[in-house]
Amino acid sequence: MFRNLFTKPASLPVEPSAALSPVRARILPRVVVIGSGFGGMQVAHKLAGHNVEVRLLDRSNYHGFWPLLYQVATAGLEPESIAYPIRAIIREHTNVTFQLGEVERIDFDERRVYTNDWSVDYDYLVIAAGSANNFFGNKNLETHTHGLKDLREAVQLRNRALSAFELAARESDPKKREAFLTFVIIGGGPTGVELAGAFSELIRHVLRKDYPMLDVSQARIVLVEAHESVLGSFSPSLQKSATHQLERMGVELKLNSMVADVDEHGVTLKDGNYIACQTVIWAAGVRGAKLAEKVGLPLARGARVPVEKTLTLPGRPEVFVIGDVSYLEDKHGQPYPQVAQVAIQQGKRAAQNVLAQIHRHPMKPFHYLNKGSMATIGRRSAVLEIGEIRLSGFWAWVTWLVVHITFLIGFRNRLIVLTNWAYYYFTYDRGQRIITDFND
Amino acid sequence: MFRNLFTKPASLPVEPSAALSPVRARILPRVVVIGSGFGGMQVAHKLAGHNVEVRLLDRSNYHGFWPLLYQVATAGLEPESIAYPIRAIIREHTNVTFQLGEVERIDFDERRVYTNDWSVDYDYLVIAAGSANNFFGNKNLETHTHGLKDLREAVQLRNRALSAFELAARESDPKKREAFLTFVIIGGGPTGVELAGAFSELIRHVLRKDYPMLDVSQARIVLVEAHESVLGSFSPSLQKSATHQLERMGVELKLNSMVADVDEHGVTLKDGNYIACQTVIWAAGVRGAKLAEKVGLPLARGARVPVEKTLTLPGRPEVFVIGDVSYLEDKHGQPYPQVAQVAIQQGKRAAQNVLAQIHRHPMKPFHYLNKGSMATIGRRSAVLEIGEIRLSGFWAWVTWLVVHITFLIGFRNRLIVLTNWAYYYFTYDRGQRIITDFND
Repeated sequence: MFRNLFTKPASLPVEPSAALSPVRARILPRVVVIGSGFGGMQVAHKLAGHNVEVRLLDRSNYHGFWPLLYQVATAGLEPESIAYPIRAIIREHTNVTFQLGEVERIDFDERRVYTNDWSVDYDYLVIAAGSANNFFGNKNLETHTHGLKDLREAVQLRNRALSAFELAARESDPKKREAFLTFVIIGGGPTGVELAGAFSELIRHVLRKDYPMLDVSQARIVLVEAHESVLGSFSPSLQKSATHQLERMGVELKLNSMVADVDEHGVTLKDGNYIACQTVIWAAGVRGAKLAEKVGLPLARGARVPVEKTLTLPGRPEVFVIGDVSYLEDKHGQPYPQVAQVAIQQGKRAAQNVLAQIHRHPMKPFHYLNKGSMATIGRRSAVLEIGEIRLSGFWAWVTWLVVHITFLIGFRNRLIVLTNWAYYYFTYDRGQRIITDFND
Repeated sequence: MFRNLFTKPASLPVEPSAALSPVRARILPRVVVIGSGFGGMQVAHKLAGHNVEVRLLDRSNYHGFWPLLYQVATAGLEPESIAYPIRAIIREHTNVTFQLGEVERIDFDERRVYTNDWSVDYDYLVIAAGSANNFFGNKNLETHTHGLKDLREAVQLRNRALSAFELAARESDPKKREAFLTFVIIGGGPTGVELAGAFSELIRHVLRKDYPMLDVSQARIVLVEAHESVLGSFSPSLQKSATHQLERMGVELKLNSMVADVDEHGVTLKDGNYIACQTVIWAAGVRGAKLAEKVGLPLARGARVPVEKTLTLPGRPEVFVIGDVSYLEDKHGQPYPQVAQVAIQQGKRAAQNVLAQIHRHPMKPFHYLNKGSMATIGRRSAVLEIGEIRLSGFWAWVTWLVVHITFLIGFRNRLIVLTNWAYYYFTYDRGQRIITDFND
C-alpha cells in the first residue's frame, strides 16, 4: 500500500519536503490534495492530526473565497480581502504541508503527480481542482465576454467596467456613449443576479457622482436568462421576489432569451435583437477544471469526472475526485450542483474514506445534505431558502451577511470586509474603483 | 491670452468636455494640469472655486499615496488602500474636471496637449508628471532589479519576494536556497531603509511561521549604501540611531559600498564581492518622469526640467513645471529634493502664479519651507527631524503614524489602513501575502 521510496527512479527531481524532513515522509501514508478551494481545504482540515502526511498543491498560494468575488469585480472589496494565504490556514496542522505549482501530468500507475518543476508521489490522491468558465466551444464568447472565476478575472472586469465610464465621458457620439454605458450579463443564476445588483448600485450610487457630465440614467444593465425566471434553483416565490427587487433597481430582465452570438461591439440575441455594449459578462456556464482533461481522465457532461458513490475513480480506489470537477448523480438522477456546500461535504466524505481505507474499514457513499441557498441582490435585499424556510428582503440580507462573514477565513479578512461593508452601508461609496490596467 | 476656439483646426478630435459643456469651456481660461500626484492635486485644490476651468490629466484614474507604497510591496497593505479615485477627490470642485489618458505630445506654440486618443488646448499648463526610476542607463540594473515607483511595481516586488520563499521551500541545494532567501536593497535613503525594516519584520514575524521547514535565520537583508551612513539627508545623530535600529532588526549594512553590476543570479559590489540573491531592489536613483523627454523639454541633471524661480519655463510664462520633474536650485545652489513637501508647496505657488497672471499681478518666486522629514524603520521605531527637533524610537514612530494617516486621502482608505495597522500591531501577522503572479 505504501510507497517504497527506494524504487524511485534516480532521474526524478528531489522531493523538497522529503529532502527537508526525510524521516516523516517514509513513515506515514501520503495524501496529495490538488486544489485548495472549499473541497480541498476540507480534506486537509479533516485529515489534520491523523496519522497521514497531507500534501496540499495549488497553483496559487491563497484560498479564494469566491462567493464574494463579484464584490471585487464591482469595486466593493479589494482582492486581498477575500484571499487568504494557504500557509497561514494550515500552519496549525503539523501533518499538512503546502506546495505551490500547477499540475501538468499524473501517472496513476506509478502514483505520482508532476508539475513542470517537481513531482510528488502519493498513496492517496484527492483531485479538487474546481471549475472553469464553460463557453461551450464558442470562440466569440471566450474572446468577447468576461468570466468571473478568479481574482484576475474579477480585477479585469473591474478595469473593464470602470474604463467604460471613462470612455463614455470623453465620447461625443451619443450612440457610442450608450454602448459604453451598457452592461450585458448573460446568465440569471446567483452569480448573474448578484453582479447585476452590485453593478446597479455601483452605477447609481457611486459613478453617478463621479461623472456629473454623463446622464447616468442612460446606463443599462441587461440580464439575459434562457429560462422563464432568474434564480432557477430557488422556489417560485423567491424567484418572483428576486425579479421584483432587480426591476426596482433598474435592471432590465430579458427572460426566455438566449444569446446567439457576441462580437466586440455587442450581443446578438436568438430573437434577432442586437444590444450594442462595451461590457459583456458570461455567467451562464461552468465546467470542470481543465486539469481533468489535461491528465487524461474520462469526462462526463460539463467536462466533469464521473466518480463512484464513494467519490473514487472507477477501478482506482486510491484516487478521489470531489467538488466542481467531479460528476455524481443524486438518487433522482440529477448531478450534484457545482456549489461550495457540495464540495465541502464531499471533502469531508473523501477524507473519511481515505482514513477508512487506511484502517481497512469499508468506505461509505456520499450523501448530500442541502443546507439551503441564498443570493444577495443589493442593499437590504436578498433571497434565502433553507428547507421549508423562505425569506426575502432585509432579514435574508442580514443572514447573508452573517453567514458570509462567518465562513470567510481569517480574522483580518473579516475585519477588512466588515469595515468595507459598514463604510459602504453608511456612505453609499466604494473606494476600490481604481483602474489598474486600462487595456483589460 | 485666452484661446480662440474658432481657430481650432477642424481635423482635431472633439474635446469631450467642450462637447458636453460648451458654454463654460469658452468663457473661462483653462488650466491643464498633467499629473495627479501631490503637486498636481495641490494645483487643482488651490484653483478650485476660482474663475478658471481646471482640467486634470493622468494616465491612472487614482491618486497614489506613495509614502506607503513600501507597505504594499511588503504585504502590509492592499493596493486599493493607498490609491484614491481622482474623480472622488475633485467631486466637490465644480470647476475641476478629470480626464484619463497618457500625454504623448505637447504643442507649446499652439498650446495644446495630445494623447493618442484626444487632445485639449490650454491657456495655462502645469506639468507635474512626477518621477521614474533612474538606472543611469545601465540595462542590467533595469532588467534585474525591482523599482518601487507605482502600484504595479509594488505588487511585482511583493510577488517576487513571496515567490522567492516558495522557491526556497522546494529547493534542496543549500547554496541556491540561500540565494532565494537573500534580499539586496540598493540605496540607503528613506525608501531603502523603510523597505529593509519592513522586509525584516515580514520575514521574522510572518514568513518564519509560514515556512517551518526553512531556517529563516538564514534569510539575509542586505542594504547597500554608497555613503558612510544611511539616511544621508538626516542629522548625524538620527543616522546613528537608524543604523542601530536596522542592525537590531538583523539588516546587514554595506556602507561606503557601491554596486558594480547586477545579473540574474546576484549583485557584484565595486569591492569585488558577489552576493548571490534572487531579489534585488533599486532604491538608489530617481529621475524626472519620461514625459519631459517625450515632449522635448530641455533637461538638467536627473532628467529634470529647469524652471525659473516662478516655476515657469524660461520664455514661456504660461507653462509651469513643478515637483519631482522640475529642476530648481535653492539659494545654496542645491536642487530642491524630489519629495512630497516640495511638490505640494510648488503646486500651491504655481496655482497662485497662474491666478497672478490672470489678474495681471506680478508672479512671486518659489520659497521652500522645510517642514521636516521622517522615516519609519519598523514597529515602534522611526526617526524624525523638524527644524531643531530630533526624535527617534517610539514617539517618532507615533508621529509618523499620525502624520501618514492624516495626509492619506479618503475616509475609507484611512479606516482600512488603520485596521491593517492595528491588526498587524496586535497579531504580528500580515494577511496580504498573496502571490498574484508567480512570474513577476
